[in-house]
Amino acid sequence: MKDRKLLMIPGPVEFTPEVLRAMGMATTSHIAPNFIEAFGQALERMRDVFLCPQGQPFVLAGSGTLAMDIAAANLVEPGDLALVVNTGYFGDRFAASLERYGADVHQVHAKAVGDAPGLAAVEAALERAEFKLMTITHVDTSTAVGADVRGLAALGRKHEVLVVVDGVCSVAGEEMRQEEWGIDLALTASQKAIGVPPGLALVVAGPRALDAFRRRKVPVGSYYADWTEWLPIMEAYEARRPSYFGTPPVNLIWALNVSLGQILEEGMENRFARHRKLSGAFKAAITALGMKQVPVRPEVTANTLTAPYYAEGVDASVLVHIGRAGALLAGGLHPEIKTKYFRIGHMGAVTASDILATVGAIERGLAEAGYHFEPGVGLAAAQALLL
Amino acid sequence: MKDRKLLMIPGPVEFTPEVLRAMGMATTSHIAPNFIEAFGQALERMRDVFLCPQGQPFVLAGSGTLAMDIAAANLVEPGDLALVVNTGYFGDRFAASLERYGADVHQVHAKAVGDAPGLAAVEAALERAEFKLMTITHVDTSTAVGADVRGLAALGRKHEVLVVVDGVCSVAGEEMRQEEWGIDLALTASQKAIGVPPGLALVVAGPRALDAFRRRKVPVGSYYADWTEWLPIMEAYEARRPSYFGTPPVNLIWALNVSLGQILEEGMENRFARHRKLSGAFKAAITALGMKQVPVRPEVTANTLTAPYYAEGVDASVLVHIGRAGALLAGGLHPEIKTKYFRIGHMGAVTASDILATVGAIERGLAEAGYHFEPGVGLAAAQALLL
Repeated sequence: MKDRKLLMIPGPVEFTPEVLRAMGMATTSHIAPNFIEAFGQALERMRDVFLCPQGQPFVLAGSGTLAMDIAAANLVEPGDLALVVNTGYFGDRFAASLERYGADVHQVHAKAVGDAPGLAAVEAALERAEFKLMTITHVDTSTAVGADVRGLAALGRKHEVLVVVDGVCSVAGEEMRQEEWGIDLALTASQKAIGVPPGLALVVAGPRALDAFRRRKVPVGSYYADWTEWLPIMEAYEARRPSYFGTPPVNLIWALNVSLGQILEEGMENRFARHRKLSGAFKAAITALGMKQVPVRPEVTANTLTAPYYAEGVDASVLVHIGRAGALLAGGLHPEIKTKYFRIGHMGAVTASDILATVGAIERGLAEAGYHFEPGVGLAAAQALLL
Repeated sequence: MKDRKLLMIPGPVEFTPEVLRAMGMATTSHIAPNFIEAFGQALERMRDVFLCPQGQPFVLAGSGTLAMDIAAANLVEPGDLALVVNTGYFGDRFAASLERYGADVHQVHAKAVGDAPGLAAVEAALERAEFKLMTITHVDTSTAVGADVRGLAALGRKHEVLVVVDGVCSVAGEEMRQEEWGIDLALTASQKAIGVPPGLALVVAGPRALDAFRRRKVPVGSYYADWTEWLPIMEAYEARRPSYFGTPPVNLIWALNVSLGQILEEGMENRFARHRKLSGAFKAAITALGMKQVPVRPEVTANTLTAPYYAEGVDASVLVHIGRAGALLAGGLHPEIKTKYFRIGHMGAVTASDILATVGAIERGLAEAGYHFEPGVGLAAAQALLL
């Protein structure tokens, strides 16, 4: 019997065989023609996946936290005012990174865990001071809360602040139209809906973000994250010329190019629709099994992951049973409710079969944990929306 | 006919099939038992490979430049005096990184490109001011100049400065005994003699470096590189407990653990000896073919790479011929002599067969370029030292 378990956490996720094959290819030089072409093509494809035709992509070895650090370090100068629209753990993290580079950070918090700040509250905050930038966590991986990026970005435009979107759990899964929505910088990590093993920090900066960087009066706070060094490198590879600052992570970039190609072959609209459909089916199963979710209403609920509270009488030990039944899920992350809920990622290459296999494993895990329900009720609820 | 060319640049280098297979394995969760065990084991093995039993290893997604940035950001506080023992391009880079975090950087330069500063010059510099730390590039990848790390570290100890070694082109190839030689922090990147595709920044910090970090009065300059966040993570994984700050690069860490296991199976003494032997054979071939080398004398010459000046009447176009003949080599990097020399990496999993194949490709490339020599003279010179 195959013993590998489905990887249904909010990243790393399931990857396609083609992506994994690219990871395992014999590495070549970072200046070999076949790598230069792959890197150049990956940069071009980043623009298409982020829906940001005028954007400047950056691909660096690092985690998603580096991608946040790239945004903070390059856009913030000491004393700048920054507004963090905080929907959870990763809003706190962005605030910490911005402060490290000298920002005076204000925050708008949701009224409760599982909620997102309303547009009115954010607009009121934007009116209180002259902010240089605002950050939005599109999908907070800790709570599955999705922000109204379109509405928030419009407010940012109106108040002439730079709009920075942490799209770590959204880009290439959740609907995000960087240029059309007026987002000045969007970032993600490879292991999420982009569909590549962890190790790449991915950023697309629009013209206003680059202008702000070019007008800086003090050097960028982080040497490794400094666009002064990386911008010429990205421009060179896209022009199919090799260039050197740090050695690019060759195998990960090959894998990125393969995955971006698969994403664009599916098409962004199809991809957004697939994520909505699979998420709806999965969430219907969770409801049918008697579980509530952390996000307080559908309008603040992400499509790339689900965060259910444990069913009555069940605790985190059920995750072990679900794991044995074939699906690896993630525990809670938000400090206030950490032990009360769990998380399932369903993004990237995820299929309807993965959704059903995961619901099935959850049902068998719940049964092992002694929870009473009608076997198959979750599967039926999901299947009704997968037809 | 197999069309893959030998990758004989100073990183990325040739990797073992086992390492590449680990790269291409289906990714698991960063908190799955089989990943926790691999990460924990890799951290333990780092100590053995760096020969630093009391060291604290750090493994982060990033390039070698991030590893330098980790050292600079965590050890430097604004106003600290730092001494850079500069043997080329990467000494300049360390100076830039140190300055970014507020260091007042002094430098000791070699008298000429291809030379290393003498111990007396470094000691004189150490006596002129109260330095907090000194940095040494063990092997300057731009010139193949190797520094006397043992002698320099002893001077550092005598003057009570923190000794930081950029071992990007040395660790696990060149002889380096971190603890015995009194090195407070050593760093490298995965794609060099450690034998893993690019994407990992690797650091081992000794007790004095960690003490200096703990005594800091101001926050670490870079958020992503901050040990405050990473130290608990490394300690947790080594204790076989999962923990989270940034998502670890799962496949690269699997590959790292495989490669470190292979390195320790060979044994560090055998490994140092193999690198010396293969380097000697390769350099004998270069000499027999009538080429001089950038390092001005044997005592300042590295074993992990060779940097020959082009033979009389030959220019960089010969690299294209050598590539067609089967070996990818690197051009010059040091700005002053960039067009006059080239570079061959021979580290990590490199074998005697790789050395001969490379010498053979160089001979055929030289012949294509119209250079006159006795065919086989390089091969014979190498072979005499490989027996």
